[in-house]
Amino acid sequence: MSEPAKQPIERKTLDERNRMSDLERLRHSCSHVLAAAVLRLWPDALIDIGPATSDGFYYDFDLPSHRFTPEDFPAIEAEMKKIVKENQTFEKCLKTRAEARAFFEAKGQKFKVERLTDIPEGEPISFYQSGDFTDLCAGPHVMRTGNVKAFKLLRVASAYYRGNEKNQQLQRLYGTAFPNKTELEAWLAAQEEAKKRDHRKIGQEMSLFVLDADFVGPGLPLWLPNGTVLVEELERLAKESEFQAGYKRVRTPHLAREKMYQTSGHLPYYAESMFPPMDLREDTGGPNQAGSESAAPSDRYYLKAMNCPHHHRIFAAEPRSYRDLPLRLAEYGTCYRYEQSGELMGLMRVRSMQMNDAHIYCPTEQFAEEFKAVNDMYLKYFKIFGFEKYQMRFSTHDPARLGQKFVDQPELWIKTEDMVRKVLDDSGINYVEVPNEAAFYGPKIDVQLWSISGREFTIATNQVDFAVPRRFGLVYRTRDNRDATPLCIHRAPLGTHERFIGFLIEHYAGNFPLWLAPEQVRVLPVTENQVGYARNIVEELRGQFVRAEFEFSNDKLQGRILRAEEARVHTMLIVGQREQEANAVAMRIHGKGSVGVKPRVEAVAEILAEIRERKS
Amino acid sequence: MSEPAKQPIERKTLDERNRMSDLERLRHSCSHVLAAAVLRLWPDALIDIGPATSDGFYYDFDLPSHRFTPEDFPAIEAEMKKIVKENQTFEKCLKTRAEARAFFEAKGQKFKVERLTDIPEGEPISFYQSGDFTDLCAGPHVMRTGNVKAFKLLRVASAYYRGNEKNQQLQRLYGTAFPNKTELEAWLAAQEEAKKRDHRKIGQEMSLFVLDADFVGPGLPLWLPNGTVLVEELERLAKESEFQAGYKRVRTPHLAREKMYQTSGHLPYYAESMFPPMDLREDTGGPNQAGSESAAPSDRYYLKAMNCPHHHRIFAAEPRSYRDLPLRLAEYGTCYRYEQSGELMGLMRVRSMQMNDAHIYCPTEQFAEEFKAVNDMYLKYFKIFGFEKYQMRFSTHDPARLGQKFVDQPELWIKTEDMVRKVLDDSGINYVEVPNEAAFYGPKIDVQLWSISGREFTIATNQVDFAVPRRFGLVYRTRDNRDATPLCIHRAPLGTHERFIGFLIEHYAGNFPLWLAPEQVRVLPVTENQVGYARNIVEELRGQFVRAEFEFSNDKLQGRILRAEEARVHTMLIVGQREQEANAVAMRIHGKGSVGVKPRVEAVAEILAEIRERKS
Repeated sequence: MSEPAKQPIERKTLDERNRMSDLERLRHSCSHVLAAAVLRLWPDALIDIGPATSDGFYYDFDLPSHRFTPEDFPAIEAEMKKIVKENQTFEKCLKTRAEARAFFEAKGQKFKVERLTDIPEGEPISFYQSGDFTDLCAGPHVMRTGNVKAFKLLRVASAYYRGNEKNQQLQRLYGTAFPNKTELEAWLAAQEEAKKRDHRKIGQEMSLFVLDADFVGPGLPLWLPNGTVLVEELERLAKESEFQAGYKRVRTPHLAREKMYQTSGHLPYYAESMFPPMDLREDTGGPNQAGSESAAPSDRYYLKAMNCPHHHRIFAAEPRSYRDLPLRLAEYGTCYRYEQSGELMGLMRVRSMQMNDAHIYCPTEQFAEEFKAVNDMYLKYFKIFGFEKYQMRFSTHDPARLGQKFVDQPELWIKTEDMVRKVLDDSGINYVEVPNEAAFYGPKIDVQLWSISGREFTIATNQVDFAVPRRFGLVYRTRDNRDATPLCIHRAPLGTHERFIGFLIEHYAGNFPLWLAPEQVRVLPVTENQVGYARNIVEELRGQFVRAEFEFSNDKLQGRILRAEEARVHTMLIVGQREQEANAVAMRIHGKGSVGVKPRVEAVAEILAEIRERKS
Repeated sequence: MSEPAKQPIERKTLDERNRMSDLERLRHSCSHVLAAAVLRLWPDALIDIGPATSDGFYYDFDLPSHRFTPEDFPAIEAEMKKIVKENQTFEKCLKTRAEARAFFEAKGQKFKVERLTDIPEGEPISFYQSGDFTDLCAGPHVMRTGNVKAFKLLRVASAYYRGNEKNQQLQRLYGTAFPNKTELEAWLAAQEEAKKRDHRKIGQEMSLFVLDADFVGPGLPLWLPNGTVLVEELERLAKESEFQAGYKRVRTPHLAREKMYQTSGHLPYYAESMFPPMDLREDTGGPNQAGSESAAPSDRYYLKAMNCPHHHRIFAAEPRSYRDLPLRLAEYGTCYRYEQSGELMGLMRVRSMQMNDAHIYCPTEQFAEEFKAVNDMYLKYFKIFGFEKYQMRFSTHDPARLGQKFVDQPELWIKTEDMVRKVLDDSGINYVEVPNEAAFYGPKIDVQLWSISGREFTIATNQVDFAVPRRFGLVYRTRDNRDATPLCIHRAPLGTHERFIGFLIEHYAGNFPLWLAPEQVRVLPVTENQVGYARNIVEELRGQFVRAEFEFSNDKLQGRILRAEEARVHTMLIVGQREQEANAVAMRIHGKGSVGVKPRVEAVAEILAEIRERKS
């Protein structure tokens, strides 16, 4: 993918956005109810601000006489319920600056006095009053406190006044509110489920990855053996799919000279999303041997934040003819982007990204077919992983902003967007069209997915690029012997290993299908007499590259089965005397329990087929 | 591999070293003969120096009146032959500094006058005379010019006086000499063959890789699709072998914080072999979300020059017990080392290294078995690639330098070296023992290989490390519940992709066995009528992941066969009407020609088996 933009934030559909502003109004009103309740219970509390957030609201207090804990929540919530029952009206009124200042000074509310200075001279200063609580507030609010029907306090945390660590710390109470109890309870249940499925929690339970901020650095995961299985199985899937779809694989270094990113246009505009440069001073002495390469005496190198410039240079490395097109260059290139440390989160927001990347170079007349094939690959993957709900967001240009936000090629924009739209329409793919959100150099498609548990996820974008190949001077010889610049499709159906695996962990709650499971099979002999038979089965499976382990200890069988279940081993083969004598195995599937006794040959064949077919 | 030393220079055995000094004496004598001949032909030539080199000798001249070209060589060689025929004695004599100066001043040999000042006061100033030629020279020489029986001038080049680009340029004549004509001719033939096998030449012919010093940087190869096939086939071989040998794969980022390399001991001592640091300024503002990681406000990051510190941190990431050992962590980690630009050469000396790396953590009592298994893996690979001649160099410590060059653990040194020696002896492996060349932290083994064409090559080392795990505080819980530090074996039987593939290209002269060949099969229909049948065969093969292509054009079959031969396609399947009717194919092997008509089923099965078994 080309644009070194921040990793995509999960987006809401337009409907959801409108819905959100109603919710925000409700939640912001609930934060007033919270502040009113706190002031009734602790009249010496100083109040700061209480905005709505994406999943609720908070309010910041200064209260040296008391430190809030979750034990306070029932009392606060009871007081809030009283206020709701009182069904107070939210009333707006305007005050002059002098009145406003006098109002808060009289109450000793020093933060509010300071916040007043944020409002520019001449702008109205609005207050909202509900019952005995009055706050400096731009609104809007619901009509009455009685509209706040379903809320819950969630947690307490410290927060610096105005988010600045040089200021004093306040106490922040977090809560959420919904239009009704059913929605609140559904949300709370989803939160509980999400906590259980949290990829960081499961990642630790299953030894998938660790973050080592101290030695390696924040946002740079180390993949442990179990997690590396996931990485390499996905890579194998991608390589096989891409081989069958006629892609060619390449490998490029993780860095390049400054000139590369000046040519691509990433420098200086995206420098802040890249790691800082390495300043290499080349030696000048020494014999310049035959075959050695020359280099400037001093040069800056950057870690790559995207693979496309390297691929463009590979395209340029040899003369190309129309007969070589489409040229589909694929690479699992690891890219490095600088994300602010406060934004890093598990595998979902990282600084190292192993990307399922490819760039397809083709003439316009091959575009539709290539683009359709890319979409088909997306759909193939969705099927393998059992993603039933998805939506593609097709971002187009705004003709009014050609030459500013969008490269000034009006005909190419219209032509390419028409082609994309036609492919999407013809394929019956579920998509929405969003104007004015294309990349600088062409239209793009974001893919939004929902996991089994309803978690939303955006895979990196699929982009059409009709501008950058020109910057790199890429040309091919046409059938009528002219030089022409190819289009370039940037695509990464599996996104990055980091985010995609983070999502898969939550999608499967760690209970991976056999082909992905870090430990696929564990063979458990019932007694010591079956140890040889069990080992022999393990060897047979390993000979076929099945990740099979063996466990025998003095522990009872039940204990060993329990341990394998806890470790989320996909298939257990239990062998007692009867099984050994019959050359059979008793098969158990994680989360399903026993599936019966089978001849060994049959069990092995079943396992191999299920892996080969990547059954979900 | 741990030690970020320069990539190993190809080493000579001790025998060869002694042999070399005889050769050097001969070659140095031949350089005197050359200088004498030049002075006879161009009496105004100024002479500088004429040492022996690893493959011959040179002599530097200042001769403004004439520019040497290869056309001069026959005349110079004829004059040299006369001098050889004159069978002059090489006679040594000592002169005082004043005599020596007067001697060269009288002849106007200004470089020689200057070179005199290099000899420290008090040291003897020796001259060698043969016939009418006298040179300032420490010797030794052969007895008489008649001993110079077989020589040849090779090329002419410019060279700065004293190798300093601020000085004037001299003309350097290169030549070589051997004890007899047979050896000279064998060497010249080998040179010709080596030129044909040069991996840079074949790399270009076969589109394997390119170096893009301008945009990417010197010494940072871009692997083109054909070269990536080699990389990924080797990787698959390594992953399969390592899976069967019980290794676990991991993945780590390509950089780490300064602290990592301070702990490992690589900083500051090896900083000059590493890429310069990236100075990352962490943001401090913004909410510190739950789950986000903290980081210092400013920190230096280094590209990794070795994988071991990352693996050590993975070892440390979880509590380890004796039951977890041996723990074998494998990774194809790309490392970056700063090699001086003048030392870079094709794939053989590079700055980016994709390393077939693994670290085996084990207690002392498991060492012998693990070390033997590592050696077996080396031998297994030698067999696959058909390396029949190899030697292991076992480098041990010097007890006199404990605590200086070698970590001060005398008992561990003796014990480990004994274990290594015993394994080597028991396995009947061809090895030599070299004292005082171990790594700082333990004994090491370099593996020296010879290709089919006699080219010598050193694979990265195999090391025992009993010091660094302690620096990282690595421990495991022993059976009797103590904490103990494991040994660590660093091993990389396939070295780096870059150097190993460079060597393989020359070993096979680009004619790779089927499993490695970039294009494995090309199907050629004789006429348009067989196009469908041919395409169908290609599809069948691709379905089995065979790299099969199809070619039909208006060119005659013979022309298409020739093109496939030139492209080094391993197997051609030619299908005419007769083959189609019989559901058969006519098979041709690159370099062998036709191997007959076979049923299609049989041909496909043969191809698949040859790939699966990695036949050489």
